[in-house]
Amino acid sequence: MADSVVNWDGKWTTDWEGALAKRTERMTSSIIRETLKLMSTPGLISLGGGMPAPELFPIREFQEACRYILEHEGPQALQYSVTEGYPPLKQYLVAKMQKYGVPAEEENILIVNGSQQALDLIGKVFLNPGDTVLTDRPTYLGAIQAWSSYEARFVTVPLDDDGTRVDLMEDILKRERVKFIYSLPNFHNPAGVTLSLERRHKLVELAARYGVFIVEDDPYGELRFEGEDITPIIVLHKENTIYLSTFSKTLAPGIRLGWIVAPARVLGRLVQAKQAADLHTSIFVQMIANDICQRGFLRQHVKNIRNMYRERCAVMLSAMEKYFPPGVRWTRPQGGLFLWVILPEGTDSMELLKAALEEKVAFVPGSAFYPDGVSGKNTLRLTFSTATPEMIEEGIKRLGKAIERQLAQCKKVQ
Amino acid sequence: MADSVVNWDGKWTTDWEGALAKRTERMTSSIIRETLKLMSTPGLISLGGGMPAPELFPIREFQEACRYILEHEGPQALQYSVTEGYPPLKQYLVAKMQKYGVPAEEENILIVNGSQQALDLIGKVFLNPGDTVLTDRPTYLGAIQAWSSYEARFVTVPLDDDGTRVDLMEDILKRERVKFIYSLPNFHNPAGVTLSLERRHKLVELAARYGVFIVEDDPYGELRFEGEDITPIIVLHKENTIYLSTFSKTLAPGIRLGWIVAPARVLGRLVQAKQAADLHTSIFVQMIANDICQRGFLRQHVKNIRNMYRERCAVMLSAMEKYFPPGVRWTRPQGGLFLWVILPEGTDSMELLKAALEEKVAFVPGSAFYPDGVSGKNTLRLTFSTATPEMIEEGIKRLGKAIERQLAQCKKVQ
Repeated sequence: MADSVVNWDGKWTTDWEGALAKRTERMTSSIIRETLKLMSTPGLISLGGGMPAPELFPIREFQEACRYILEHEGPQALQYSVTEGYPPLKQYLVAKMQKYGVPAEEENILIVNGSQQALDLIGKVFLNPGDTVLTDRPTYLGAIQAWSSYEARFVTVPLDDDGTRVDLMEDILKRERVKFIYSLPNFHNPAGVTLSLERRHKLVELAARYGVFIVEDDPYGELRFEGEDITPIIVLHKENTIYLSTFSKTLAPGIRLGWIVAPARVLGRLVQAKQAADLHTSIFVQMIANDICQRGFLRQHVKNIRNMYRERCAVMLSAMEKYFPPGVRWTRPQGGLFLWVILPEGTDSMELLKAALEEKVAFVPGSAFYPDGVSGKNTLRLTFSTATPEMIEEGIKRLGKAIERQLAQCKKVQ
Repeated sequence: MADSVVNWDGKWTTDWEGALAKRTERMTSSIIRETLKLMSTPGLISLGGGMPAPELFPIREFQEACRYILEHEGPQALQYSVTEGYPPLKQYLVAKMQKYGVPAEEENILIVNGSQQALDLIGKVFLNPGDTVLTDRPTYLGAIQAWSSYEARFVTVPLDDDGTRVDLMEDILKRERVKFIYSLPNFHNPAGVTLSLERRHKLVELAARYGVFIVEDDPYGELRFEGEDITPIIVLHKENTIYLSTFSKTLAPGIRLGWIVAPARVLGRLVQAKQAADLHTSIFVQMIANDICQRGFLRQHVKNIRNMYRERCAVMLSAMEKYFPPGVRWTRPQGGLFLWVILPEGTDSMELLKAALEEKVAFVPGSAFYPDGVSGKNTLRLTFSTATPEMIEEGIKRLGKAIERQLAQCKKVQ
């Protein structure tokens, strides 16, 4: 904790460092959030942050919804509201979830400030210090952050092209007292892979046998641009699953709007935690999003997003074929925003990032996605959603150059 | 945890109750949030929830700001943003705080989802289970909720017409290892009283001597409608104070927008906690609020709010003179939204609430504001900001009737 307030020259009578709670030892800043700050470097092509394509933001629809809501329901949109969420938006989500085969009712839904808050509330309600969470390796960085701040322990299983290696879970469930399993079944962040239906069934069987629940994080489920939808875990195991999703990847992330689906008994606890955390999610934002959604806007819009991401993913894959040196492997996503690159053993993607920034291209080093913070040194995550096809082509070309430099250096060192 | 999901008839393989974290034992639903749900009873006059007057919500200004921001800065307003907050809004707050005499810079400010989130983040960063917080009795319910969920212990000192009985603090500070002191110096929620300048100096001296920091919660500071402004605690003790405020009472609560001012060393920790909690506050909302504020709108608007609340408070005070039976006492606020009523010893305001609801008037029973949850049975909080003068007059008349019935019943029992 460096003291950077040079102009505050009075007396420090507080031992701020000594006053910190123990859990702060586990809190760090996300490398992704930090790289967001780099984004303004002129000429830099970022394949880093997991940001949706801003060209597709439905600005006109937001304008219309703002006008309508403020004109017709202004006082309600600006006043305090209930913690659970705006009832018409919950009804919209009930219908949406029912299309997925999830028999959710309003009492099963809680609206949150983006699904990061869902992860935080789950931690608050379920995690004692030292409790064990079973995740993939790699897994979503935000989940590691959220649960580290409740002093969770992580045990992990690896991924392959069919998602989580569920076959390796039972040994862990036998050996460890796992509190819950965290799963990102569709277009995994960061790995881009999807959990097969067979493995979903197997996962649910295991969870039931060992009496652990599943947290199913599904921010990208609607963004499948290839292949067929696969039944969500919550449909297979609804009494024992907490499901999370978000409007960040379909509508806009800047409004911070997500939701939780859970058994009513569980939802009530999450509502209490949310009430203590921030009373409720902006009703103004909820009413605007509801207005846009109720008009049926997302149906066509999500198709446009899928088409754009299909193209950008294809451009990235073929550019990697062209510009990446032999020995580099990567995943082939059927949806979502991300793919995963595995460099030859011994390469360090943190070192590569320095070389890449010199070439004016950015990515996220893979070790950020490992709960131990040190594995996966030879991996990295690329985002294909944000940059245009031309920028992706150029960015991958620059990255290929940086990788070649890096590999040459590795050989020299050896 | 009652299972109310009758339609989810599959197998419950999870022991949800057993899976709960220990801290959930301390989580409850706020009686205020619950009474919000009663508000829709036809004909009910609520003097309960702490809601600003909806007639004054600046709907036209919101319309203009939405139009402007979406037209000129739409992609930025809808994309992910930095955790710390929208820089121009932070600059606006820097200028605002400097007018208060607080030499804050941008690095001292964090934008949050309403000041309830500030309370939560402070709990997360500073409170280990069992840590002691020194508060008033009564004190703000949301603070009790936020810090109970981090398993805090509360020690308390009473209030009088000059605010916190600071003279009773030293004994506690000698005896207990207090982590921090929580203070609501201006127009206290729920008590309506204001901490005198003399006591502020004394409070700061004590905090310095015992090396504890102060959390200064100031949501109503701008809403003084009588008397002179008093120097904020953070001005007297800036290196050792975390200051919170909000746009909820000046602009609108439905947007959920507040801020924290703290030494940069502390702020960095709060930023990390916020990042894990929800990445960032809606940038859409921040940009709209910033647009409204930068145009200088609040200067006149806050005067209008003060004028309205001055009138409503006066109406409530004179109606109480008229309709309340002898033996009932109350505070005389110089600003804010609330006043505090003390019934004769032996009266139970929870019982009174039932009688009041029969008369179609609502308030918040005082025990909700006591960390022990049982003291203050003969007290209650009234809000003068929400109802019109006519409704306040009528509401107090009804409440007077309910109090009389209740006092008559008490005598009978005795």
